[in-house]
Amino acid sequence: MSVALVTITHNGIGKAIVDAAESILGTPTITVRHCSFIAGDDVEQFERRVMDTVREADAGDGVLVLTDLIGATPCNVAQRLAPAHHVRVLSGISLPMVLRVFTYARCDLAQLVERASDGARVGVIECGPSDQAPS
Amino acid sequence: MSVALVTITHNGIGKAIVDAAESILGTPTITVRHCSFIAGDDVEQFERRVMDTVREADAGDGVLVLTDLIGATPCNVAQRLAPAHHVRVLSGISLPMVLRVFTYARCDLAQLVERASDGARVGVIECGPSDQAPS
Repeated sequence: MSVALVTITHNGIGKAIVDAAESILGTPTITVRHCSFIAGDDVEQFERRVMDTVREADAGDGVLVLTDLIGATPCNVAQRLAPAHHVRVLSGISLPMVLRVFTYARCDLAQLVERASDGARVGVIECGPSDQAPS
Repeated sequence: MSVALVTITHNGIGKAIVDAAESILGTPTITVRHCSFIAGDDVEQFERRVMDTVREADAGDGVLVLTDLIGATPCNVAQRLAPAHHVRVLSGISLPMVLRVFTYARCDLAQLVERASDGARVGVIECGPSDQAPS
């Protein structure tokens, strides 16, 4: 079982997060590719690049696509992939989300979606001690 | 009311996300600063940079610190700020989280923490249609 991970985000967000995950957990066992969209980029060209990247990344067990924001161009392009490819698309990419993907890289695609979305939600933690101004 | 936003993350994650938020919503009314930590950086130097950045960003209404991962160096440094500064620290930074901060920039610090954490959790959405391989 070897699902691939493709990030489709604005401004290299996906690569920055995956690089951080690698600095924490080491090189992942999962295949990882990135497609970055900058405001003003040609959307059709971006879409072709995304199609090619997903096709090349898929070793037969499907592709988990992590994107940044539902309704924005990277996510819209990712959603258009779905009918033609074995992909699942999850928005709200964050470092806790990617760490879960690395940790559960041997799960199947459906399980990986659950792990990743759960990891992202539980990774939102208030860790500062107080809302009071210092005395 | 003018809370400041400081991102304290690995590998420029915070700046990449804030730049994407700006490309969607335009220049924010909130003051934004970034501190990026790369694996191998000197932690004491990084901590001094973070202290200076937070001190300079705070216009008197406090600072919302968004970081990437609880337990990692950027978050640990952010947590050490809290006793000496009027800050709240939230982990799990994502584009939906930052968009909420931009949208509710006139809220006070406590309200902003709620909006940001809520935005991040609800921004984790499965938006691909199927886990079935194409026929």
